[in-house]
Amino acid sequence: MTGPRVGDAFGEMLRAGLALASASAMVEIVERDDGLIRAATAERYFAEPADWAPFERQALDFAVGRVLDVGCGAGRYALALQARGLPVTALDVSPGAVDVSRQRGVGHTALGTVSDHAATGERYDTFLLMGENLGLLESADGAHRFLADLAAMAGPGAHIVAHGADPHQTDDPAHVRYQQRNRELGRMPGQMTIRVRHRDLASPWFDYLLCSPGELAALLRSTSWELTEIGDVDQVNYLAILTRRPDPAEVTATARPGS
Amino acid sequence: MTGPRVGDAFGEMLRAGLALASASAMVEIVERDDGLIRAATAERYFAEPADWAPFERQALDFAVGRVLDVGCGAGRYALALQARGLPVTALDVSPGAVDVSRQRGVGHTALGTVSDHAATGERYDTFLLMGENLGLLESADGAHRFLADLAAMAGPGAHIVAHGADPHQTDDPAHVRYQQRNRELGRMPGQMTIRVRHRDLASPWFDYLLCSPGELAALLRSTSWELTEIGDVDQVNYLAILTRRPDPAEVTATARPGS
Repeated sequence: MTGPRVGDAFGEMLRAGLALASASAMVEIVERDDGLIRAATAERYFAEPADWAPFERQALDFAVGRVLDVGCGAGRYALALQARGLPVTALDVSPGAVDVSRQRGVGHTALGTVSDHAATGERYDTFLLMGENLGLLESADGAHRFLADLAAMAGPGAHIVAHGADPHQTDDPAHVRYQQRNRELGRMPGQMTIRVRHRDLASPWFDYLLCSPGELAALLRSTSWELTEIGDVDQVNYLAILTRRPDPAEVTATARPGS
Repeated sequence: MTGPRVGDAFGEMLRAGLALASASAMVEIVERDDGLIRAATAERYFAEPADWAPFERQALDFAVGRVLDVGCGAGRYALALQARGLPVTALDVSPGAVDVSRQRGVGHTALGTVSDHAATGERYDTFLLMGENLGLLESADGAHRFLADLAAMAGPGAHIVAHGADPHQTDDPAHVRYQQRNRELGRMPGQMTIRVRHRDLASPWFDYLLCSPGELAALLRSTSWELTEIGDVDQVNYLAILTRRPDPAEVTATARPGS
C-alpha cells in the first residue's frame, strides 16, 4: 500500500463537482484518524439560498459591513452576501476552493489561513464561519490562536457568525470511543483529526473542533470574543454569534468624553 | 492513526442501504492500495430490472437450468431469475450481503467463496458473474483456481455469464501508473488490490481482475472453459459467455454409442 498523495483533495473535489452537470453526483469523502470514513454528496457546497436550511438564511442577516467568509468552499455564502451588496472576501486554504469560488463569481478571494490573512492588515465587521466552520477553531489551543487572528482583523463591534455542532449528542459507539480516546489524550472530546480524500489525493490531516455551546462559552473566556447570541437548530447544530469585547483602550477612549 | 477495523464493510454498507428509504443516499467507498479512492452511490445494488442497463437484462436470457449467482450483493440478479421461475442460489462471502439478499426475498442463499461452495457437491448449469464480477477471477493464478472450482460444480454444457471491464481503455494517469506498477510486479495490468470501507470498517484487501476480452481468452487456454460469445457494451464493458469444454471422459462417453 503506497497511500494517497498529499495535496488539495478538497479543492480538486470541488473542481470536479463544478465540472459536473449536477453536483449531487460528486461525493466528498472525509476520513478520521481512527479509520472512520464518511462519504456524502457535495451538493451543499453549490446550493442556492433557496435550498439552504432556514437557519443558514437567518445567519446571513447577522452579516453587516465588510465580511470575511472564512473557509469559503465553493463560495455559496460569499455569493449570497455579494448579491445583497455587501463587500465580502472569500478566504480558503484550498487553491481549488478559491479558484472555484472565483469561477462562480466571487469578486474578492484570498488564499490562506486566517493567520496569513491577518498579516494583510485588512479589517472586517463580520466573520462568517458557516457550514460547520466553527470547527476551524481546531482545538482548545487552536481556538485561542484563531480567535486572536480574527480579533486582529476585527473592527469595533465586529461579530463572528458561526455554525457549530455539538459532538455530545450521539450514542454511536465509534464516536463515543473516539471522544473517550480524546479525553485520555487531553484533547477536547470533539477534536476531530480528519482529512479529505479525492481520487489519489488526500489533504494533510487537520483538526476540526466540534464543541457544545457550553464548551464554546468556556473557550471564549480568555479571548476578545463573547457569546452574545445562540440558537439551537436541532439537537446537534446551533448558530452562535460572537461579539468582540471592546479593548480596554477602546473602552477608555469611549468613556473619556463623558467622564 | 489507528485505522479502520477489518470486517464486513460491504455487507454493512448494504444493510445501511436497505434501511434507507432510498439506496441512492448510500455510498459505496472502494479504496485501492495505491491510495486511490472512489465513492459512488450504492443504488445499483438495489436496482430493479427496469432500471438496469439493457445488456444486463439480455445477460439474464443466457441463464438456464440451475443458477449460481456468484457475488450476489443485495441479490438483484437472483431475485430477477427467481421471478422467472429458475432455481437460483445466491452466493457471497459477505454475511451482510447474504442477509440482505435473504431479507429482500432470495429463497436460496449461501455464505462463502466458490471454493467453499464447491465442497457442497451442488451442480449448476449457469454461473452468473454479473455486476463486473468477472473481477472475482482475481489474478492469473486466481483465475485458474476460481474457474476450476466453477468447473467442479458445472453440469454438462454449463455456462458462465460474466460482465467484464477492460482496464486498458483509459488515459487516466493514476490508472496508467497503477497498471505499469502491476506489470513491473509481474501482475496482470488490471489486477486491482482493493478494499471496501464503510464507517469504521474496512474489508480485508482483495484482488479484483479487470481484463480485456483478449486477456480473458488467453487466461482460459488451460482451463475447462472456452469463450463462446462476447459482446461489447461500450468501450470498457463487455458481456462474456464461457462454456464448459466437455471432459475427455464425457466426450468418450458421448461418442461411444455411435462409434
